Amino acid sequence: MTTRFVTLTGRRASQTLADPMAEPKDNPLMEKIVSLCKRRGFIYQSSEIYGGINGFWDYGPLGAELKRNVKELWWRDMVQLRDDVVGLEATIIMHPEIWKASGHVDTFSDPMVDCKTCKGRFRADQTSEIPCPQKPSKMVSECHGEKTAPRAFNLMFRTYVGPVQDESAVAYLRPETAQAIFAQFKNVLETSRQRVPFGIAQIGKAFRNEVTPRNYTFRSREFEQMELEFFIKPDEVIEAIKGRVTPGAERDTRHSTLDTSSWGWEAWHKYWVEERIAFYESIGLPRTTLEEYWQKPEELAHYAKVCVDILFKFPFGTQELEGVAARSDFDLSQHERFSGKPMGVFDEELRAAWGKLDERKKAELSKRYYEARLKYLTKMSVEQTQAEKEAKEDADGLAKGQYIPHVIEPSAGVDRLMLALICHAYHEDQMPDEKGKMETRVVLKFHPRVAPIKVAVLPLLKNKPDLVRKAIEIRDALRPHMNVFYDDAGAIGRRYRRQDEAGTPFCVTIDFDTLGEKPELKDTVTVRYRDDGRQERMAISELLNWLLVKIR
Amino acid sequence: MTTRFVTLTGRRASQTLADPMAEPKDNPLMEKIVSLCKRRGFIYQSSEIYGGINGFWDYGPLGAELKRNVKELWWRDMVQLRDDVVGLEATIIMHPEIWKASGHVDTFSDPMVDCKTCKGRFRADQTSEIPCPQKPSKMVSECHGEKTAPRAFNLMFRTYVGPVQDESAVAYLRPETAQAIFAQFKNVLETSRQRVPFGIAQIGKAFRNEVTPRNYTFRSREFEQMELEFFIKPDEVIEAIKGRVTPGAERDTRHSTLDTSSWGWEAWHKYWVEERIAFYESIGLPRTTLEEYWQKPEELAHYAKVCVDILFKFPFGTQELEGVAARSDFDLSQHERFSGKPMGVFDEELRAAWGKLDERKKAELSKRYYEARLKYLTKMSVEQTQAEKEAKEDADGLAKGQYIPHVIEPSAGVDRLMLALICHAYHEDQMPDEKGKMETRVVLKFHPRVAPIKVAVLPLLKNKPDLVRKAIEIRDALRPHMNVFYDDAGAIGRRYRRQDEAGTPFCVTIDFDTLGEKPELKDTVTVRYRDDGRQERMAISELLNWLLVKIR
Repeated sequence: MTTRFVTLTGRRASQTLADPMAEPKDNPLMEKIVSLCKRRGFIYQSSEIYGGINGFWDYGPLGAELKRNVKELWWRDMVQLRDDVVGLEATIIMHPEIWKASGHVDTFSDPMVDCKTCKGRFRADQTSEIPCPQKPSKMVSECHGEKTAPRAFNLMFRTYVGPVQDESAVAYLRPETAQAIFAQFKNVLETSRQRVPFGIAQIGKAFRNEVTPRNYTFRSREFEQMELEFFIKPDEVIEAIKGRVTPGAERDTRHSTLDTSSWGWEAWHKYWVEERIAFYESIGLPRTTLEEYWQKPEELAHYAKVCVDILFKFPFGTQELEGVAARSDFDLSQHERFSGKPMGVFDEELRAAWGKLDERKKAELSKRYYEARLKYLTKMSVEQTQAEKEAKEDADGLAKGQYIPHVIEPSAGVDRLMLALICHAYHEDQMPDEKGKMETRVVLKFHPRVAPIKVAVLPLLKNKPDLVRKAIEIRDALRPHMNVFYDDAGAIGRRYRRQDEAGTPFCVTIDFDTLGEKPELKDTVTVRYRDDGRQERMAISELLNWLLVKIR
Repeated sequence: MTTRFVTLTGRRASQTLADPMAEPKDNPLMEKIVSLCKRRGFIYQSSEIYGGINGFWDYGPLGAELKRNVKELWWRDMVQLRDDVVGLEATIIMHPEIWKASGHVDTFSDPMVDCKTCKGRFRADQTSEIPCPQKPSKMVSECHGEKTAPRAFNLMFRTYVGPVQDESAVAYLRPETAQAIFAQFKNVLETSRQRVPFGIAQIGKAFRNEVTPRNYTFRSREFEQMELEFFIKPDEVIEAIKGRVTPGAERDTRHSTLDTSSWGWEAWHKYWVEERIAFYESIGLPRTTLEEYWQKPEELAHYAKVCVDILFKFPFGTQELEGVAARSDFDLSQHERFSGKPMGVFDEELRAAWGKLDERKKAELSKRYYEARLKYLTKMSVEQTQAEKEAKEDADGLAKGQYIPHVIEPSAGVDRLMLALICHAYHEDQMPDEKGKMETRVVLKFHPRVAPIKVAVLPLLKNKPDLVRKAIEIRDALRPHMNVFYDDAGAIGRRYRRQDEAGTPFCVTIDFDTLGEKPELKDTVTVRYRDDGRQERMAISELLNWLLVKIR
């Protein structure tokens, strides 16, 4: 069945997917997950004491640590471990013209109908699914209320900047982080030591005034994105410099010494799809839980060459975690048009190479670049003569080493990734309780990399000062290196169970043997594994290094 | 001279401070700092290609890393290295009732006058400083335009949530992160393993529609806060349990094994002031650059017992980095009143201790608690008979182990701390260039903990594959442990200078001796110190551990 949805990349498409259920309560597994998330302090409803606010969720102590880990791992992988990507942190409120250039002011909207009788407002494509507020036995489409024709309802949150609240002061909360990267492209290029190909990465909040937030935190009105815009040379430039463009299928993958100099957009796009899937695998989402969905030509935005959605099999359906799009030079071109500031780069290598091309090759590359630019300008409704003139100037620029970079955009959602990690980690199994009786255990089997707490340090008994002292010593030795939880309250079995529900991979127990009751066990502790409850004895002196390897 | 200003804690006060200058261009040192921040990619104007947007700033590649470090260090210090503080990450848009409870809807405003002639809107206390837009030779207060009486202009950004944009859908961008902590207090208490005293910490964006953003990034409309709400027992509870309250001046400080069980609000407040100053020292702001400002009684909000501003000596004046306030039980009480949900806690220790008190002591503590509650209720305009009834119930609750926790709030601004770090790090000195001629050098002497890049790895020459290969080997060995910058372009002296301006504490140079040209120097590198340009030779095998100690 066909449902419309907002992609993470801020563009809309129709796509054949299982219809996402409206609420977790329709799904017993999701109900359990939602309950655990509240009970253990991963996720709370925002403003819960005031009845909540639809589409907004808060992260409690464990959720906040999980989120920090997810963002930190993305940043390390995408920025700090690479020479060719730098970071940016831009504001949520930007100049409103940015959203005209990006197309969001004109097209980022849902068609809505108003009911003049009940004053309700409904998504035009959902009137046959939503009960009439006044007569719930009928759907909105069947009820007697007089409806308006569908009208566009923009999904950006509006506000006013400055003391006067009129139209000139309207600004928007960004619906995606990507546009700030395009708007600051030239500043970053000029102040970092980067040249194309290179990327700019950003993590930050974005806001969409969704008409129907749903699926727990999956579709929220306030959410966080992790976006990379990776700028590359147009294929015509690669061909001028290298004589050929490596076909997407032929490229070598995932080596630190890749020769990417002849990669065109197709090779770079496939590279990033694979990088991103490898990232998900590295934090505990096996490939079998993921699907690649290559958008069909009719689903693509007009400027996109290709877009791959990386989907995760949620309990409520297979849904998008991330989109990896080849967006051509659309975004930079739009900002050039709207700001009047040049967004092109100068490439000395291209200029030098161009001089050595034969006339036939020059003509061929110029023609292709001309046609691509003309296509863009025509789409943007530039008058024909003017468009031809500008496209010719752009094509002439090639010979001088000038072009507007193209971009590959891997765009991921932090909140939906967290939800995927929690759903995938959720397990119930049978384990003996203190008295050996089997009981059902709930456990979050997080990859240690993302687990909010890496290790719990537990003195066997609270009222034995020597045990407590030793446990605190161990806590303080581990703590500078990882997130440690210290707990001395309650039976040890119950403390293990709490850590199972928190997803803590390891528990360390300090007992009387640690203190030397059995001399051969002095200065050893019990390490308990979360996943199978197995325990082993380990020297305190080995503990830190052992843990560091496990959580790396 | 007296200037009104918004404190970071969201409350307003009059305070005697140097009048902050309007713009960096009035200050030659600030002008240089602003220029460096742009040139090296620390800070850009938001939406610069569209002419910018007043009061909004973006962080470029180096700024984004600096900001990450500052936030990470705060979080480690305040949350992860402590047993008694947990994190929270709440939404920016919350239920609007929260801002009624907090007082922001009613009182978080500036008085403004409108000019009916030019349609301008001006802060009422600045009309004699602002030129008339139509006749700039005169100030607004002197011009002929007909002015309205001053009217309150609320500083919160407004927006609408959901498809219908009417008054029922109004919501605000949070003007501070603190209120989310109060609203989620009970959820956190019930789902983390914490008991009073404990704290909840949060880092996140906040928004204030300042009429006059000024001093570069110091007073922005969009900014980030790091706030801790540390919940403590009321002094009456401490006295019931421990028999006495440790006076503020008497307490032991900064030991990991502090006995804090008899600390009242005064001791906790002083503790947090000292902790926070120690934090600033630990990231490179010496005590001599800071000032403590104890707000005068007439400057305090009515519910605050005391508030200390920690000030930094900026080039444009001595200004607030952080406020540490003792806020009594005002915030939780307000949310209890507005939400109808109980915010009190039950304390078994208190219940047990109360039973053992003599009647005189019980009466005395009850009376003091009653009076404090009555004072709060009266301030909140509760009708007298009702207020007395409620205060009596509250006082009776003490005997059953019930009370509303008080709170100490250290509230810091990320952006102004970054600006302080940059201003303090900025130095100009004389250093010889490649040819030995002295030249002026600009250097940012960041503490290695906060430096965006920890080490730069530089092969002496780019066109010698063996040098490059060795340098890449070293880069890849260091990179998993710290932020490394690899640079092979240009003369080595110029590369050092770029790192000086980036604030990189160490440069590592790979030269022919590294490759064994002098056999006794094989597998050694040159380590260059940023601050004095000093260089020393070090074995590659020692490099990682040496750096890890330096940047810790």
